[in-house]
Amino acid sequence: MRLLLSIPLVAFSFLFSKETSALSPSGDPWLLTPGPLTTSLTVKEAMLHDYGSRDPTFIKLNQEILEDLLDIVSGKETHVAVPLQGSGTFVVEAMLRTLIPRDGKVLLLVNGVYGKRMKDICSVIPRAFTMLEFPENQPVSVEAVQDILSKDSSLTHVAVVYCETTTGILNPLAPIAKVVAQAGRKLLIDAMSAFGALPLDSQEIPFDAVCASSNKCLQGVPGVGFCIARRNSLEETKGNAGSLSLDLFAQWKEMERSGQWRFTPPTHVLLAFHQALKELKQEGGVMARGRRYTENCQRLRAGMLSLGFQPLLPEELQAPIILTFLMPKDPHFNFPSFYQQLKSKGFIIYPGKLTHVDTFRIGCIGDIGPKEVEEALDTIRTILKANPE
Amino acid sequence: MRLLLSIPLVAFSFLFSKETSALSPSGDPWLLTPGPLTTSLTVKEAMLHDYGSRDPTFIKLNQEILEDLLDIVSGKETHVAVPLQGSGTFVVEAMLRTLIPRDGKVLLLVNGVYGKRMKDICSVIPRAFTMLEFPENQPVSVEAVQDILSKDSSLTHVAVVYCETTTGILNPLAPIAKVVAQAGRKLLIDAMSAFGALPLDSQEIPFDAVCASSNKCLQGVPGVGFCIARRNSLEETKGNAGSLSLDLFAQWKEMERSGQWRFTPPTHVLLAFHQALKELKQEGGVMARGRRYTENCQRLRAGMLSLGFQPLLPEELQAPIILTFLMPKDPHFNFPSFYQQLKSKGFIIYPGKLTHVDTFRIGCIGDIGPKEVEEALDTIRTILKANPE
Repeated sequence: MRLLLSIPLVAFSFLFSKETSALSPSGDPWLLTPGPLTTSLTVKEAMLHDYGSRDPTFIKLNQEILEDLLDIVSGKETHVAVPLQGSGTFVVEAMLRTLIPRDGKVLLLVNGVYGKRMKDICSVIPRAFTMLEFPENQPVSVEAVQDILSKDSSLTHVAVVYCETTTGILNPLAPIAKVVAQAGRKLLIDAMSAFGALPLDSQEIPFDAVCASSNKCLQGVPGVGFCIARRNSLEETKGNAGSLSLDLFAQWKEMERSGQWRFTPPTHVLLAFHQALKELKQEGGVMARGRRYTENCQRLRAGMLSLGFQPLLPEELQAPIILTFLMPKDPHFNFPSFYQQLKSKGFIIYPGKLTHVDTFRIGCIGDIGPKEVEEALDTIRTILKANPE
Repeated sequence: MRLLLSIPLVAFSFLFSKETSALSPSGDPWLLTPGPLTTSLTVKEAMLHDYGSRDPTFIKLNQEILEDLLDIVSGKETHVAVPLQGSGTFVVEAMLRTLIPRDGKVLLLVNGVYGKRMKDICSVIPRAFTMLEFPENQPVSVEAVQDILSKDSSLTHVAVVYCETTTGILNPLAPIAKVVAQAGRKLLIDAMSAFGALPLDSQEIPFDAVCASSNKCLQGVPGVGFCIARRNSLEETKGNAGSLSLDLFAQWKEMERSGQWRFTPPTHVLLAFHQALKELKQEGGVMARGRRYTENCQRLRAGMLSLGFQPLLPEELQAPIILTFLMPKDPHFNFPSFYQQLKSKGFIIYPGKLTHVDTFRIGCIGDIGPKEVEEALDTIRTILKANPE
């Protein structure tokens, strides 16, 4: 298949900037990114209200959010949900600080930027760790995990990223959870870009804590994260955190006591989150959302292949969250110009984040379906075709 | 003056719940609280858009926000502004972590909950500190600060709360800054509920760092804070923080390098913040906003006095941010019922936070003016009068 890329596109970019473009219902370019992503208009409209953070109406709304989150992992009997202000990294740091005691040691399973970020966190807070690193285009090896756990008795915890957004690779969470449980260690999961779309039933995948954010697959707006922790484990974490803001034990205890956040919550973000969780249920829950994303992903992958782009990952390693494509070797393909033209025509994509290979990424998540994916593909086709040999 | 409170109000509360009530343009009760507060409809409407966090349009918007913040303190030549996800406490913790080196020692000036919170932060992160504590209804004594700085040479920093929201008391920031500078120490300011309404010119009030949030007097929505730090001081703070998320040095360096946040920013909160800063300029800047709040405060104080309520603070100690009233001693005055009736008629007030005295609070900040203050006073009068002897 020939790659439809041969003439410098940058020269033509001005021709397209004024054309009619596909825009989201809020009049913005569609965000084909790993988040912030395109949310529904109704999710954004939920933010058109000011709520008092200590008012009973707002307190009730928070309780509903936390109950919904526990429902998603079937964790009501065994786990508790604790919200935290900030980005996903804030709650990952809070999870590692709170759940791993000062004298604990964590095995970090790393095959991308977000695994490495856990290493950066453990290095500064600090917590002792051992890193098991894999190439960015390969999943974590369950055998390697089993092996190291059997050999190093000082390891108390294991931390893994469910879907590594660096490439969009899916890690084999269920088998990892099984060997960690068999080895009697505690599992901490960064499910940032998986929660709400990929299976994560606490009764089938044993974990001590998982964290994620309002944004990503739950399709709220960014600004708040959460950790779902096993109640028995969290009970033992008092004084671990070494931070006032990032202490999940203290946050949990205060919410149990008063239903209130210790420090001002992002009220509008939470109104949007509440609406987003309602819309997740309306869609049919995690299974239905996962199906829609999978369809988006398959359609996008097939379409890009037909246009001559090369996905980084084989299909069986691909999570239905974000696709990574190799940067075309054609010297006439200019990514900044391609990005700019796509944006002017209504689609924002994402640069690559790989260490060794030049890539770009296109997300499959957010309030998008077959229509938007086809429009994005048509637009890419048009941009490529507008530059004949 | 007789207090118009003699019959149990709780018995009548159902009578008012269906009445026409004063509501904000978004159809919500007015938030007469220290934040989250009532924002303009246009600030909330700015959130009806999804932006990519790494897109040039969003990057430019962030730069404008940071420039506006520096302008407010006349700090462009000497200081830099660093934003941070989360609540005000997150950025206070980040400021103390980043600005105070591990071997530093801070003098904490405490006359309320937010001063004590700095103590809680220093205790856990940890940083050595000495606390100079004053009663909640008295301002920090400048002489006492001067005295202790002359005696304890191990103190490297001084930290103070500009307006202590616990009571609404104003601390004498300019004279404190002067003695700290004369003693050759570095001043860190929590200006959470003052920034944007009270004077804070870096050329007149020397400080090393000040932090505040998008919410409060800047009238954005909650979810993001910021620290304005002296460039020379921040340059020396690499590796101080002991946290990945709360590291202002790393956050600053990345924003200088790429204009981007290290970790997903709350994009919608920032759109609202951008709009809120525009509206601050439209109002005439900090002086004009301070005047409006002062008028709100004086009107509210006089009106409440005429209804028989007793303010905690004498007028000369009162910052124009939030008023604290002593809980009426009349056994028939039931605060939960009073709160509920006020809410059902369109006004949300705030419980007290004092350790020793039973109080409640009413805020003067947010998108409110004389009309809303008069309506609130009329509503309070109606509630009290509806219960004749």
